[in-house]
Formats: sequence, C-alpha cells, structure tokens
Amino acid sequence: MIPSSERLSRQIAFVLELDKLKTVLRQTLLLDSSRFENDAEHSWHVAVMAMVLAEHAPPGIDIGRVAQMLLLHDVVEIDAGDTFIHDEAGAADKEARETAAADRLYGLLPADQAAGLRALWEEFEAKESPEARFADALDRLQPILHNVATEGETWKRHGVTADKVLRLAGRIDRGAPALGAYARALVTEAVRRGYLAPAPDGLTG
Amino acid sequence: MIPSSERLSRQIAFVLELDKLKTVLRQTLLLDSSRFENDAEHSWHVAVMAMVLAEHAPPGIDIGRVAQMLLLHDVVEIDAGDTFIHDEAGAADKEARETAAADRLYGLLPADQAAGLRALWEEFEAKESPEARFADALDRLQPILHNVATEGETWKRHGVTADKVLRLAGRIDRGAPALGAYARALVTEAVRRGYLAPAPDGLTG
Repeated sequence: MIPSSERLSRQIAFVLELDKLKTVLRQTLLLDSSRFENDAEHSWHVAVMAMVLAEHAPPGIDIGRVAQMLLLHDVVEIDAGDTFIHDEAGAADKEARETAAADRLYGLLPADQAAGLRALWEEFEAKESPEARFADALDRLQPILHNVATEGETWKRHGVTADKVLRLAGRIDRGAPALGAYARALVTEAVRRGYLAPAPDGLTG
Repeated sequence: MIPSSERLSRQIAFVLELDKLKTVLRQTLLLDSSRFENDAEHSWHVAVMAMVLAEHAPPGIDIGRVAQMLLLHDVVEIDAGDTFIHDEAGAADKEARETAAADRLYGLLPADQAAGLRALWEEFEAKESPEARFADALDRLQPILHNVATEGETWKRHGVTADKVLRLAGRIDRGAPALGAYARALVTEAVRRGYLAPAPDGLTG
C-alpha cells in the first residue's frame, strides 16, 4: 500500500510490533509508587545506566554493545510476559516461552538482520561474555535501587527475604564487583531500616 | 548512609532522578490508543529504531553513538516538560527551559561525566553531525508511524495538516533520505485515507 522496499517494510513491521513492550508490566514500582514499571521504560533505564556506570565495568568492555543488549533484552516478553525474578514456578518454562517468542518476533525482520539481533539477545541470556554479565548486573541492580527507594514495597508484597536479594547481588558481582559490593551494602541498609525481611534461620544467601 | 564512593553516589542519584522521565507524557498515543506515550519508553523505542534502521543511515555513521544520543535526548524534559512538535508558542522559550534543566540534571553527576553526557545531548540539539541528524530523523519518524497506525488521532486532535508533517519529513531527509522518502509516502497515504487533513490552500510544505 505504502511504497517501500520489502526490506524496509519488514523493519517497520518489527518497529511497530515493539510498541507492545510498553504494555508489559513488571513487578517493580516507579520511584513515586504511582504504578508498575513497564518493560520498555525499564529497558531504557538500564541502557542509560550502562552509559552512566560504565567505569565500573571490567576494562575493555564494549559499552555500546551492552546498551544495545539491554535495549533488546526484554523484547521476547511481548509474547512471553514478564517472569518475576523470585518466581520459581514461572522460571520453569521461561526458556521455552521466550524461545518461541524470539522465533515469532525476530522472524518479522529480514533474515540476516533477525539473526544478528537475536544473537545479541542470546548472548545476553547466556551470561558468559563480559558484556552480557555487565548488562545482567545492571538489570539486577535497578530493581534493588527501586525497592530501596520505595521502602521495599515489592519485596514486602512478595515476601522476599534478604538471602534472595543477596543471591542477586552475587550475580551483580560477576559483571561488576564494585556494583555487587554496593548492592550488598544496600541490602544491609534495607534490612536495618525494615524495608527487607532478614534471611530466615540466619541464612545469608 | 550506604557505604559507597562519592562518585558512585552521584551517579546513582542521577540514575534515580532519571526515573521521572517515565512520567513525562508526550502527545503520541501507544498503537493500541490506550494512553499517551511517556518520554522514557519513547526514548527506548527510537534507540532500538537506530539499531533496526541503521542501514538507512549515511555510510560510516556510528550507530552506537546515535543510540546513546537518543537514550539521553529527552532527559531535560524531566524539568522542562515535553513541547509538542507543532506547538509554536511552546517552542519560543524551549531552549531556555531546557538549558536550565540540563544544568540541574547533569549537575547531579561528577563534573567530568556531566560534561561528556551533556556534550552528547548538545550534539543532538545542534543537528549538525551525521549522527545527530540521523537521530533526529528517527525522532521525527516515530510519531508519524504512530499517527498513521492510530488513524491520525493526534493529528486530528491538534488540527495538524499535511504541510506541517511534510516539513518534518524534510528534516528526516537530512538524516536519512530513504526514510524521508518513506515518510512522504506515509503522508500521501494518510491524506488519502482521511487520517491527515490536506495542506490548506494547496500548500505542500
């Protein structure tokens, strides 16, 4: 209908489909507690964090690549939905749901481009490259920051305890030790202030 | 209170302040027309567009830099608010409002980092480098795509006519001629379908 190359048409179809990520809600609240955060604005926030916190990444890391990974990291949730980080039941079939979603969504693009962007998402999921680990660290740190700033609203609603958040801090360590140390300090302070319940039975993660 | 370097504390203060961009609303609707788009999710959308539409940029352009520019391009609107692209009264003092906003917001960061990130925003605003022009093209194209997909809801509400949208297409041309041509085709089709009023008195932009 609108004159354009087949290739551009496919790219625009993908761009329009991405709009749906703005309606996928996470468990994280905005800092003013007015509503839940959606995946699109979360992806923006962590991508900017990559720029702002770049100096805490291991030397030689490609921050542009980290930012691009974070821009795409939740796109599969358009079909698969958001799985709360502490939801063990939801985690069981998460991979299958997300793989099917990637097939459909990246399949909207020209094949060569689909492969390239999907590879970037798969690199993020594998958490093996320094870039993927730093991206994962930021993706874990951001909800901790939001929880502390909202006096632990999401933690309290889901009965999350300090040992579980400390496990996430361990993942932050793998990507950015300085940010992992900062996250652990946040957990200690959150427990002290009553925003986060201590570990049951003296567990420390 | 929470042990961290002064430098990291300032970076985290900036990151937390950024959350407010999620509550700055634009005139653009989501594609399901359920609500207005906010600046944070818009910034995410256009940054991903930079990745997806990269091949339509002039050769040699640094797409990582374009994406970073787009991630930051609306941050000043936390203080200055969104100025509708066709709002001529609002445009008059836009620059002064945004400069004051940049002073305060980037001032949260360590000074060296504030200068670097602010320079990237200023490069975007100047629209002189190929990266800034391509970023601007995507920032102009995205609301046109949304308007066409929502049958011109925002255009109709504000009485926008085809000549005005064609002027924006001219700006898209400066950054990415193929996307400018595509935008003009969208305008022709939108007028034909009754989503967009034709130019008054036979103006064509």
